[in-house]
Amino acid sequence: MKAILFNGERLEEIRMPKPRLRRGEAVVQVLLAGICATDLEITRGYMEFRGVPGHEFVGIVVSSSKRELMGQRVVGEINIPCRKCSICRSGLGKHCPNRSILGISKRNGAFAEYLSLPVHNLHPVPRQVSNEEAVFTELLAAACEIPTRVRFPARSRVAVLGDGRLAAMAAQVLSLKTGKVTVFGQNPMKLSVIKRIGITARDISQRKRFTRAFDTVIDCTGKPAGLALAAELVRPQGTIVLKSTYQGQLNWNPAPIVINEMTVIGSRCGPFDEALKLLARGKIETTPFLTATYPFHRWRAAFRCARQLDSFKVLLQIR
Amino acid sequence: MKAILFNGERLEEIRMPKPRLRRGEAVVQVLLAGICATDLEITRGYMEFRGVPGHEFVGIVVSSSKRELMGQRVVGEINIPCRKCSICRSGLGKHCPNRSILGISKRNGAFAEYLSLPVHNLHPVPRQVSNEEAVFTELLAAACEIPTRVRFPARSRVAVLGDGRLAAMAAQVLSLKTGKVTVFGQNPMKLSVIKRIGITARDISQRKRFTRAFDTVIDCTGKPAGLALAAELVRPQGTIVLKSTYQGQLNWNPAPIVINEMTVIGSRCGPFDEALKLLARGKIETTPFLTATYPFHRWRAAFRCARQLDSFKVLLQIR
Repeated sequence: MKAILFNGERLEEIRMPKPRLRRGEAVVQVLLAGICATDLEITRGYMEFRGVPGHEFVGIVVSSSKRELMGQRVVGEINIPCRKCSICRSGLGKHCPNRSILGISKRNGAFAEYLSLPVHNLHPVPRQVSNEEAVFTELLAAACEIPTRVRFPARSRVAVLGDGRLAAMAAQVLSLKTGKVTVFGQNPMKLSVIKRIGITARDISQRKRFTRAFDTVIDCTGKPAGLALAAELVRPQGTIVLKSTYQGQLNWNPAPIVINEMTVIGSRCGPFDEALKLLARGKIETTPFLTATYPFHRWRAAFRCARQLDSFKVLLQIR
Repeated sequence: MKAILFNGERLEEIRMPKPRLRRGEAVVQVLLAGICATDLEITRGYMEFRGVPGHEFVGIVVSSSKRELMGQRVVGEINIPCRKCSICRSGLGKHCPNRSILGISKRNGAFAEYLSLPVHNLHPVPRQVSNEEAVFTELLAAACEIPTRVRFPARSRVAVLGDGRLAAMAAQVLSLKTGKVTVFGQNPMKLSVIKRIGITARDISQRKRFTRAFDTVIDCTGKPAGLALAAELVRPQGTIVLKSTYQGQLNWNPAPIVINEMTVIGSRCGPFDEALKLLARGKIETTPFLTATYPFHRWRAAFRCARQLDSFKVLLQIR
């Protein structure tokens, strides 16, 4: 099969054997795959991953150790726990220290014609949800995780930092919980798209007017400075939710966390079932955040496009 | 009256007018005052404070706008909110941006024969509690704040980082909630004192054996590196409580907070009534953590002693 490999130095197109069906797993023919910031980080050395990147996908099950999945259109959770260690047995499988992660650690990912995942990880996609929407499931699930970790009383004031795809999903999910969500970003084009779907969006340079004004601030900047910005905007005893991981260090004095008695909550992957439900009910806009879809052979252009500051989500049409 | 002043460059003994009784306040004759790490930070420029430092004290009310307080032995809360701004009106007075703080910001403190505080801030000391115990109230209250912010299920595994006075108080308070508290420090003398009161104490160099082993980790190191150490010891989805503020920057990548979905809670001043209750019931050991008491005229020696690595709490006998 065709695949895009990160060889430790650069991405390259190769031919490699199709994954074999392993016990408890299914082989999925990939239809569409999304390029995520993590994929770009991988090409800069993140997680020291070598192999096929890609972890946002929608595909068709072509062979499966669970019959009912055959022929189903599916999306998939990306963590594959060992199911044996004490962390797994305590119910925290997504934190298993021995886990592999689709396209990120110890398992080839979705920038290939086929991938394999445990059947437990797969979720059939409801008919109403298009392929282009379904490929947002992993991202939207990460946004859906936020209200599982933090309570949002009816009139709470929420800020989302960042103007990328994750910020757009988080702002929409939280708007369903509370009417008062403000996005702070720095890209005028992206902020205008977010405004167009009815969400208050401001340039981050206006933040001085909002010092300590928010009960909860969600950092989706993907940058080390996001935490420090969030600490300016959150009220005393307020909550900061960190969503983005990155390479590189933050040089910062955490004293404001103590002095202002903040709570900082790290949050990552979230519930796929909840995300699929929201997509099926038409509660979430994804189309405005789809920048371009490239055919497989144009993968270099797709990665170039994904690196542009003005880009939201870039897809690879695998089949 | 006699007082010790920080003039922006160094501490000096001066004579200054006794504080006058202001509306809603009381004047307290100081008996004993504790030297806190924050006082040492102030002499290095913390908060740009100029004036009389000192915020841990026990004293006698000598004049008061509230009659019942006259002649009472008291300890006092250190934040003096404006009671007018929106933060005060929302019930978060200790976070008032206009507040003064006894001996730390905009109000002279306890290294003087007299100080003044609003009557709301004062708490009478129960008869069973000695002066030497009472001066630990502010510190113990900060430890009592921890279980008001974090739940400790019966068998939760708790680590306290640091081997100073605050660590000793936190370890004792949390031992009353859960049997399994381990203190990690680096000073063998201090660790041996903590062991002597029945708490498990280990050298921080042994921490590799305890990677991700604790449900909750309390950082009382007073050092930027404490947060990074705590992140090594806490389990996925566990909680870190930050207790210490300091000058200086931490150069760190907060990604582990996100990847391991930790909760980081900043916590500072706590409930005086709870602390006094624990002292009155004899639930907390303070004597082993009293290093020395110096007469007022020996204040330079007292500060030198407080700076020693082997010192726990050093007191100034003001009267």
